This record gives sequence, structure tokens and C-alpha cells, in this order.
Amino acid sequence: MTDEMDCLLNPRTIAIIGASSSSDKIGNVLVKSLLRSSAKIFPVNPKHDLIEGIRCYHLISDVPDDLDLAIIALPAEKSYAEFIKVADHGVKCAIFVTAGFSEMGNHGRELEKQIIDYARSKGTRVLGPNTLGVYSPITKIDTLIIPAEKSPRPDGGALALISQSGSVHVSMLEKASSMAIGISYSIGLGNRADISEIDMLKYLADDDRTRCIALYLESFSDGRALIELAKSITPKKPIVAIKAGRTEAGSRAASSHTGAISRSGDDIVDGAFHQSGIIRAYDDEELLDYANALMLMSESKGDRVAYIGSAGGVGVMASDYIESEGIGGRLRMAKLSDATKKALSEVLEAFAPLNNPVDLTASSSPSQYDGAMHIVAQDQGVDMILLSLDMQPPMMDDSVFDYIKSWAGLGKPIVGTSTGGDLAIRTVLKMQKLGIPSYPSLSRCIKSARILYERGKFLKQIGNKGSSKTHPI
Amino acid sequence: MTDEMDCLLNPRTIAIIGASSSSDKIGNVLVKSLLRSSAKIFPVNPKHDLIEGIRCYHLISDVPDDLDLAIIALPAEKSYAEFIKVADHGVKCAIFVTAGFSEMGNHGRELEKQIIDYARSKGTRVLGPNTLGVYSPITKIDTLIIPAEKSPRPDGGALALISQSGSVHVSMLEKASSMAIGISYSIGLGNRADISEIDMLKYLADDDRTRCIALYLESFSDGRALIELAKSITPKKPIVAIKAGRTEAGSRAASSHTGAISRSGDDIVDGAFHQSGIIRAYDDEELLDYANALMLMSESKGDRVAYIGSAGGVGVMASDYIESEGIGGRLRMAKLSDATKKALSEVLEAFAPLNNPVDLTASSSPSQYDGAMHIVAQDQGVDMILLSLDMQPPMMDDSVFDYIKSWAGLGKPIVGTSTGGDLAIRTVLKMQKLGIPSYPSLSRCIKSARILYERGKFLKQIGNKGSSKTHPI
Repeated sequence: MTDEMDCLLNPRTIAIIGASSSSDKIGNVLVKSLLRSSAKIFPVNPKHDLIEGIRCYHLISDVPDDLDLAIIALPAEKSYAEFIKVADHGVKCAIFVTAGFSEMGNHGRELEKQIIDYARSKGTRVLGPNTLGVYSPITKIDTLIIPAEKSPRPDGGALALISQSGSVHVSMLEKASSMAIGISYSIGLGNRADISEIDMLKYLADDDRTRCIALYLESFSDGRALIELAKSITPKKPIVAIKAGRTEAGSRAASSHTGAISRSGDDIVDGAFHQSGIIRAYDDEELLDYANALMLMSESKGDRVAYIGSAGGVGVMASDYIESEGIGGRLRMAKLSDATKKALSEVLEAFAPLNNPVDLTASSSPSQYDGAMHIVAQDQGVDMILLSLDMQPPMMDDSVFDYIKSWAGLGKPIVGTSTGGDLAIRTVLKMQKLGIPSYPSLSRCIKSARILYERGKFLKQIGNKGSSKTHPI
Repeated sequence: MTDEMDCLLNPRTIAIIGASSSSDKIGNVLVKSLLRSSAKIFPVNPKHDLIEGIRCYHLISDVPDDLDLAIIALPAEKSYAEFIKVADHGVKCAIFVTAGFSEMGNHGRELEKQIIDYARSKGTRVLGPNTLGVYSPITKIDTLIIPAEKSPRPDGGALALISQSGSVHVSMLEKASSMAIGISYSIGLGNRADISEIDMLKYLADDDRTRCIALYLESFSDGRALIELAKSITPKKPIVAIKAGRTEAGSRAASSHTGAISRSGDDIVDGAFHQSGIIRAYDDEELLDYANALMLMSESKGDRVAYIGSAGGVGVMASDYIESEGIGGRLRMAKLSDATKKALSEVLEAFAPLNNPVDLTASSSPSQYDGAMHIVAQDQGVDMILLSLDMQPPMMDDSVFDYIKSWAGLGKPIVGTSTGGDLAIRTVLKMQKLGIPSYPSLSRCIKSARILYERGKFLKQIGNKGSSKTHPI
């Protein structure tokens, strides 16, 4: 597939306008970052012959190759004149990583308009201005102005992020990194003067690496087009979105921040999202939590959850939270069949209760977890499994993680959690890296399980049988 | 103050029945842990003369001192015979840290009854059986059977924890440790054959070290007594509680777990908690989050929140979440006065919007945070401050933490958050250690702010003007 947006997300050649040799400059951070990519890099700066050991071009017109992408790392005032040279050189796409445009008032707005007018006249596509740009662990294209040493980047995976806000963009990348959520591409839209969420969604819809798309928006570039496009994407690929500015106060704040126009009836947004299969999140934590579940697991065919864990009290809280209407999962605790109970009785200790929650007690061992998972997964009355894995009990050891690898074939979606502090967080990360969407919080885990059920309901509604695999990794 | 429960929580002398010299035995973990306490320790085991370098007594009757506390670390079957000797020796209190009693069925129930009957005849109080016992960083009394190396203990502080579930007890301690929440005492009630939450609440009500009490219960030992007692405590000291088993499924799970009788109308629990000023939490994360806020901050006099941060998009999400009715804080974004806006204009960059959320932008510096905090705290229209501290911007450095120390005098409650991944978590921990209740999640931070407002409403309702200090640390 060749797509216009390949010049942005998979460029073969990149010029850095305003490349610098001093390490405290954005133009230097960018050269260093991009040298790690597979693209061919062309620093441009009239004052230098060599930057980071490679040739620096004095003028973009000196660059011998066709350019897919130019990154403009110059103050706003200087950028128009330089962009003209970029566009005249036939560069297919430009990213403006600096601020000082329409977000700053009338003068900046005029500057931005001049740039876009010229870009359109030459057929150059523009990301931004006022954007962190693009990061992809797959292509190693990284135009973020904060170096990776200061702001850790997530590993490669199947989640694509799109953000209208730079701070939310950075925050989501750092959160994804600390939660071991792998991403395919992340794109900052900035002032969205040209390239919008619509362009990006079109590209990502057909991108084989991307299994789920997460979106942070404060306004829509074209609400109707978004909904129509989403309708064609969500049957095959889930979209989770925040539409911030949903209250009066949030809307005022969004207006100061990205110039988003006032809240156009948040109920309408709700309805349109629902109708087009977009799952709505209300903060960055939910956005990543839900996207994580949808990226790693297929939908749940029903709302009956089996809980497997070793901590009795946590099982009680989980049962409450799973079934609660107001605050909670609005799901059901599965009723285990007699055959399941009999099979469990052969795996568990004599004193363990044979119910759901399945309580492995403090005598839990890795092989008991494995036995219980296999038995419960075969119960026709169970739609998904909540695995609460605690490593404290004396018989537990890391061999449980070897078993986890085999649970991909169990045929039911699994969500994971672990209770406690730092040990629990480490356990959650290990489960996550083995392909089970995992959360250091019971409520976040159950809310994400709910989303797998919502996804199943949506696919059933539109008559789509959904994916045949339940554990795509 | 001398209290019967001092023998449990502040013992001067402790016997360990079933002390052991092999490091894989509970009886050895206990000796080692308790040697760190300020109490005098008497290991008891007929087979040893010396354990961990101190004299081991063959019989409890050989111990020359009066004993405040005995810890029975023997299998259930052996413990009755040994307990008779303990009670006959006049020990004031005993903790049974082993399982195998009423939670195991009729035989264990009978055993437990015999123990309690004998204890009552001798005036010995009993914690448990089937409890992890007690942990206090203040007295260094630590009867938890999982060594601190495997299960990190929190530092000293002002939060008391009481749990009917052992696993929730350990989980809360580990969570408190990883969140830098300091605790005064934590008590596991176990089967609650004698000492109950009522005894503990009475003690903690008058304990000067404890500023907030968090409670995990699956059933009430005496619901009416609890509510009456709570009414006398909550005007001076907040109580946060989980009553698990609130749904049919949770109630069934609680019945298998602690034998809690079926859910006696969860609406009644809700009403009784509300009436007696107990704040209800629905999972362990909420329990600690709310208790953390109430321990470190005084109540908020109103619902008007000012947000100070440097990340525009996060400010928009925060505004939404603060004002949302269904999912959200059900609070209000404060309207800043003209005087506040004018003062802010002298501190912030020219391009920063002068509104709430106060957006320090990527140009934020420690002194701007300090200036904004002082200005906003003086606004009569602001009841509390949500501080979103991000260390990414280039001008930010650790000097901001020196400023934070001075914010205790600002006269308004503050809750803290930071957005992103590992750096955000480290920032949150630093704020927390400086006395600002802080959360690595916007929604958890705002929900906790809501609780400070709920506390203020409750105190107003009962005609209590509340604490004069807003930042007790």
C-alpha cells in the first residue's frame, strides 16, 4: 500500500531545517533521534558543514535526493521564508515542531495561513504547526523535542495514538512506556492547520501493524466526516477516544488551550460516538487502559466473568465491583458448572471454596493457576477471565509466567491484575509483556473488561461476528 | 492514657509461643521482626535454649516478667493446650497468627470457641485467630508472617488501618509503602473471635498519632455499635471504610471467605455510613487514596477548585473531570477574581492564559509555581488547589520541592498529581513525602479532592467548624 501519509509516517528521506550541533537545541535533539531511524537524514543549516558526524547542507536546494519529509525546527518568525524553499524543493510533507502560530493570536494565525496557502499551492502536506510531531518505534522516526533520555518512549506494538494536545501526547507516551504498552505510531496534530485526525485515521485503518487506535481531541476538524469514517473502521479495528471540553469549564479551558470552539452539545458527541462504535474514555488513564485491552484481546462474547486469584478479600471486592451498577463493571459473575467445580476440586486444596471467585488461597502454586485457568476457560458459562495473580504465597514462583504463554490458546479473553505495591506492579508488567492486558488496580482492570464486553456488544449489533482469535498475540 | 488495647498495640513485653531457629518458620520470622521493636522479647520453645542470640524459655511459666502480649505461632491443633498455659500465666493479650479455626468448618469452630471461652474466664483478650496480627512502624511491633524483605512495610505516619481480610491487609500495607503513605498502626482482625473493629476504633479514636482510620470489613461484629461509636469519632477524626459483599455476588464470595452473613441491605449500610460520617470507599485503591487525603489535609470549606499546572490538555481534562456529574468530581472550577488574574499576569509569561485552569505552559519554572500557588491561595473564591506538577519543562528543577515545604501555610487544602509515566510517579512520591496527598492519576486525585469537600460538608452539617489548620504536616 502506498499512501500520501507514508511520507509522514514511513519517510525514506528526511531533511531537518534548523539542524544544530549544540546539544541543548531542538535542532540537535532531532538529528540525533532521527539518525536512529532507517530513513536517510539531511541536516540543513547554512552555518555548518558537519553535524553529528554527517554532512550538513547549507541550503535545502543542495540536497540531491527527493525528500519525503522536512522537519522545520526554526522559530515561527523565520519558518515561513524557509518553508517556501522546502515546498519549492518538492518535499512531500513538513512538520512544524515549534510554537508561535495560531495558538498565539492574530499575528501567528496570519503566519500559519500563509504557510498553509503556500503548502497547498505546491502540494506539500503539513503536520502542525505547534506539534511534537511523530514517534514510531517501528520506523524509529522520532521528532519529539524532548529527548528519549528525559521522556522514555514505549516499545513497538499495535496501538496507534493521535493527540491534539502536546502535553497529553507526551503523557500518554510516558504512561505507555511505564505500563509496557507497545505502540505502532503516535502522532501529535498540534494546531491541525492541514493534516487532521481524518487523514491519520484513514492511514491507520489500513495499517496492518495497528490493531487499535486511541484518540485525544478537544475539537473535531470535521465531526461528520469523523463519524462516517469511524463507521467504516470500527467493525474491523476498535477506536477509543477522549473528546475533552465536554463540560462548560472544560470547554472554556479547551478554548484557551487549542482554540476549540465551544462545546457543541456533549450529548451529541456521546450519541455519535456510540452510533459509530467509538468507545469513549474520560481521561488519559482510561484511554490507555481501554486501548490496551482492545489491542491485546478480542472482544468478549458476553458479560459473565470468572475471577481466579489467591486473595480472598480481593475476590470479594472484585465480585462487588464486577456486578455493581453505578460504580463498577456492570458485568456478571459467571456461575460455574458442576463439571467445572468437580474439575477444580481435583486441582485445588481440599479447603478451597469451589465457587466463583475461584480462590486458590495462600497455598496457590503456578500449576494450580494453570489448572484453574484451563478448567474455567472450558466452562460454557464463562465469557472472560479476570486473573488476579499474586506472587506472595510461598509456593509461587516465576514458572507461572511460563504457563501464561500457553494461555493464548484458551479461547477466552483474559484481563490481569495483581494486588499490593511494588511487587504487584512488577507482576502486572510481566503479565502485560506476555500479552495479557494488565492493570495495577482492580477497578481499572474490571472497567477494561467491561470495554471488551462493550466491543462484543457492538460487533454483535452490526452483525459482525468479530475476530475468530480471542488472544491475538 | 492507659487502655486495655495497649497490651496489643503498645506491649512492653512479648512472648512468642512456637519460636523457632529455622529461618523458614513463622516462629523465626516473628522473633527476628520483634527484636527490632522496643518491647522485651521472650521466645518460648521447649527444644531450644537460645534463638537469634537471646534466651529461649522452655515453658511460658519460666518467663519471669509480666507479659502484655503472647503471639501463638503454632498449628491450630496444638494451640489450645498452649494457650491454656498462656492464659494461666496471666498474659493480657494473645494473637493467633495461624489458620485452621472457624474459617475451616465445624471442627475449627469448636476449637476457636474453646479458646475464647477459656480466654474470657481468665480475662485474656484475643486477636484472631487466622490473622496477620499487628504492624506499627512507631512501636516496631510487627507480627506479619511475611518478612519485610518480601512484603515492604510503610513508614510511620498518621493513618491507622483495620482489615478483616489478611490479603487486603497485606495489599494495603504494600500499596501504602509504594505510595509513601505513612501509617500509625495496622491491625488484622482475622476471624474476630474476640477483639473486633469496635475495640480498635475505641483505641484509635483517642490515639494522638492517628489522624485518619481506614477500615476493610466484610461484615460487622455489631453494626449498631459501630455506627454509634463512629458518630462520636468522625467529628474529630475521619473514618473511611469498605464494606465488601455489597452485591449478591460479593456477598456470596464474602460468605465463603470470612463467613460473613448475607448482605443485610446495602442501602442500609450506605445510609448508616452517611449518617455517622463514615466515608465509603469501593476498593482498596479508593480506600487508601481517600484516607491519604484526609490524613494529610483538613477538609475543604467548599467545592471551588483551582487547577495549577503546565500541561494545557491535562488542564482541559481536569476541568471536565472536576465538574462532571456522573463520572467525575462533582465539584466546580473556581472563578478567579480580577485581582488574582492581575497578580498572575505579573508572574506568568505574557502568552499564558489568565484563567482557571492556571496554565504555566512549557515555560513553567519553580518560582512561577510558587508565585501562582501564593496568588491563587489568597483568592476568596478558591476553596482548594489541584497542583499538577510536571518536571518535563526545561526550566523545571528540584528547587520546586523546596518551595512546596512553604505551602503548608497557604491556608487551603492542596491535592497533587503529575502526568505521564515513571518520572510522574517519582514526582508524585516527592510531593507526597512533603505532605501533599498526591496521586499518579488525574481521576484519583480529583476523586480524593471530592472527599475533602465531602468531609467539609459533613463537619458543617454537624455544626463542627472543623480543624483550624488546613495542612496539618
